[in-house]
Amino acid sequence: MSTQNSNIPSSAGNSGKAPGEAVGIAILGHGTVGREVLRLMEEHRDALEHRIGGPIEVRGVAVSDKEKHRGSVPEELLTDDAMTLIQRDDIDLVVEVIGGIDYPRRLLLTALQAGKSVVTANKALVAAHADELAEAADRANVDLYFEAAVAAAIPVVGMLRRSLAGDQIELVSGIVNGTTNFILDAMDSTGASYDDMLKEAMALGYAEADPTADVEGHDAASKAAILASLAFHTRVNYDDVYCEGISHITAEDIAAAKAAGQTIKLLAICQRISDESGQEYVSARVHPTLISRDHPLASVDKSYNAVFVEAEAAGRLMFYGNGAGGDPTASAVLGDIVGAARNKVHGGRAPGENTYANLPVADFGQVPTRYHIDMEVVDKVGVLAELATFFAERGISLRTVRQEERGGHARLIVVTHTALEADLAQCVERLKESTSVKAVKSVLRLYSE
Amino acid sequence: MSTQNSNIPSSAGNSGKAPGEAVGIAILGHGTVGREVLRLMEEHRDALEHRIGGPIEVRGVAVSDKEKHRGSVPEELLTDDAMTLIQRDDIDLVVEVIGGIDYPRRLLLTALQAGKSVVTANKALVAAHADELAEAADRANVDLYFEAAVAAAIPVVGMLRRSLAGDQIELVSGIVNGTTNFILDAMDSTGASYDDMLKEAMALGYAEADPTADVEGHDAASKAAILASLAFHTRVNYDDVYCEGISHITAEDIAAAKAAGQTIKLLAICQRISDESGQEYVSARVHPTLISRDHPLASVDKSYNAVFVEAEAAGRLMFYGNGAGGDPTASAVLGDIVGAARNKVHGGRAPGENTYANLPVADFGQVPTRYHIDMEVVDKVGVLAELATFFAERGISLRTVRQEERGGHARLIVVTHTALEADLAQCVERLKESTSVKAVKSVLRLYSE
Repeated sequence: MSTQNSNIPSSAGNSGKAPGEAVGIAILGHGTVGREVLRLMEEHRDALEHRIGGPIEVRGVAVSDKEKHRGSVPEELLTDDAMTLIQRDDIDLVVEVIGGIDYPRRLLLTALQAGKSVVTANKALVAAHADELAEAADRANVDLYFEAAVAAAIPVVGMLRRSLAGDQIELVSGIVNGTTNFILDAMDSTGASYDDMLKEAMALGYAEADPTADVEGHDAASKAAILASLAFHTRVNYDDVYCEGISHITAEDIAAAKAAGQTIKLLAICQRISDESGQEYVSARVHPTLISRDHPLASVDKSYNAVFVEAEAAGRLMFYGNGAGGDPTASAVLGDIVGAARNKVHGGRAPGENTYANLPVADFGQVPTRYHIDMEVVDKVGVLAELATFFAERGISLRTVRQEERGGHARLIVVTHTALEADLAQCVERLKESTSVKAVKSVLRLYSE
Repeated sequence: MSTQNSNIPSSAGNSGKAPGEAVGIAILGHGTVGREVLRLMEEHRDALEHRIGGPIEVRGVAVSDKEKHRGSVPEELLTDDAMTLIQRDDIDLVVEVIGGIDYPRRLLLTALQAGKSVVTANKALVAAHADELAEAADRANVDLYFEAAVAAAIPVVGMLRRSLAGDQIELVSGIVNGTTNFILDAMDSTGASYDDMLKEAMALGYAEADPTADVEGHDAASKAAILASLAFHTRVNYDDVYCEGISHITAEDIAAAKAAGQTIKLLAICQRISDESGQEYVSARVHPTLISRDHPLASVDKSYNAVFVEAEAAGRLMFYGNGAGGDPTASAVLGDIVGAARNKVHGGRAPGENTYANLPVADFGQVPTRYHIDMEVVDKVGVLAELATFFAERGISLRTVRQEERGGHARLIVVTHTALEADLAQCVERLKESTSVKAVKSVLRLYSE
């Protein structure tokens, strides 16, 4: 076996502080989260210093426009030159709450190379560039913390990195985007359309003016990449995640789910799978999912988040809470600041990136899934037999078939047993081509553990 | 401010290992949990060593009767002399899964004094002697881990120690005993009596032959002491915890709760409270509690555990999973082994005991609670007015009063607003003395956040 940390020079990075010497902190960004972090650090300074075991001092707050923040940040801390701030000798710890990818990436790589530990809440950055950030942290023997990047104050990162470090994780599935959960929950409880509930979410501040990143699943896909990397000790990037949003979900889909004792949730699903030869893969995907109302994830309402974990020894665990918002995100950032500052004071490093397992990431087509297909078919004898052969030809067995008369044509709802995604998708294409099928109204995947 | 760790000699304890040198592990106990820990360590050795960053080796397994375990433990590891094993120079880490208090206390104090880090699953020991164990760990600059002592694989200890280290915790309430939750859940779903469902729990292996520690709340009280200590950075011992079990709960209580949209759970409640002068206290208590079926804790069924946390910035969080059993407990023990071994390899220490806040523990009488009182009263004019004065005299306001005729006498159910426990308890004594009250059938506290 080899270790990631074996070549670290002992002089660099987290080698401890002289008693009484403060840990110098730079905060990059002064938006909703940055302001709350600064406020809580002031209000609870004494408690935080006790928990850290030494003094801390905020020595700079970097913003893009100083005029805008004059008054809310002490003048002597305010700067618009983040790059100079993070390289100052009196800065030990850089907290990034700006957002975006390229600019914070340059800043954090520079900070890590200069021996500063980093705390970031930036899921897009971590999902896209965890590799080089982790490598820079390893080389400098400093910490890279990002609890706030996934599900805000729900401590999933710490749980995967530490608490379950002795277990083998089989599955991590979760509701990790508050906007889409709000919309789907509202559609479920009111029967309204997607468009109406998106407008409602915007009016209430749960969705942004451009909701694309949320409703098309991109935000959840970033989080799925991070969760899968941690759970399976394997690098999973944003581009490895299959991603499908909720904008095509109709009120009729929701009603049909309800009638069958189910609901539709946008789930991030990270799974360890094996093929017939026993080769192990990891899979990370985000898509709307039919889930039984009995499952703990089904009852997660409003904009709440929840992450469900199944591990070999621990069994089933669930974590639930506020997955977004200034205060919960600030709580996670502050927890990371305490951890990173402790290591600056006492020496030692947090468990870092560890992708030793290096499992292949499965193509989505190779992933076992289950389909719920709702179609309009011609109302004549022999249709069911014809369509059933499409499934049989691909080795897909059917779990339930339900046919409803609807004046002149029939509605056919098919639920399959588990099969490979590629076979199921091909089968749907074949159904669409058949003259016996008037329309494939909806195709939804079912949750299975 | 002062720190607990300021006088640690840098040479002692977790000062790092030479590359390739294994972390030597002694396991004390070879029951359900010990066997599973040993099995998982063998099965996942390669993965664990990658996560630790260096090799590990189990160098001894101590049992009370070697004959009993011959065959299931390699002969060269088996010993009945735990005291000698833990002091050997080739042991770095002692894992205690024996149970009991006095004997493991002596062993673990000796191990810590000898510079070994300790992982224990022993809630009774930690609840009773965390003080001296933590002090011994601090003096030797080694780690004391006990994730498995509370709610097994649900990582509440790590969450309170690390993830929420930057936040102020207001409340920790939880279902932390699987036996009592199984019994109450079974009473709720079947309408059966306590005695019948206790027998059922015994038959299914959810309750021990002597169920006292579970059903009288002692086990939950140990966990409440540990949770309150961690949440409020204040020493709370087992003896500080008010403790009331579930053996007096009747099928009628459960039925009445159900009719009111509630259920009864045995909750451990750890709360930060303030008196009128603004003085802060902590309170830790265990008692049967009426809780609305809408609350996430109400839907925790069977022998599952769940811990609910409310923090200033994070808001409401809930953690749910298997709170007992060999496998989930072993998962938590292994997570701790990885953490403690990492620090032996790389240097550094886990956040230890930190009771800097040192808040006073409130007398139970000073804690704000709410009562649900069910009584039989004489059916005559003026009774309600008479009884209402008992409450009014103590400044207790009533939220609802419900009266039911029952041929010759009346049933009166009173739900109070929040008042001090001592005033409520005195009021119940006064009711019992009144000639207008035939019997006080049940007194239950209501959950309020």
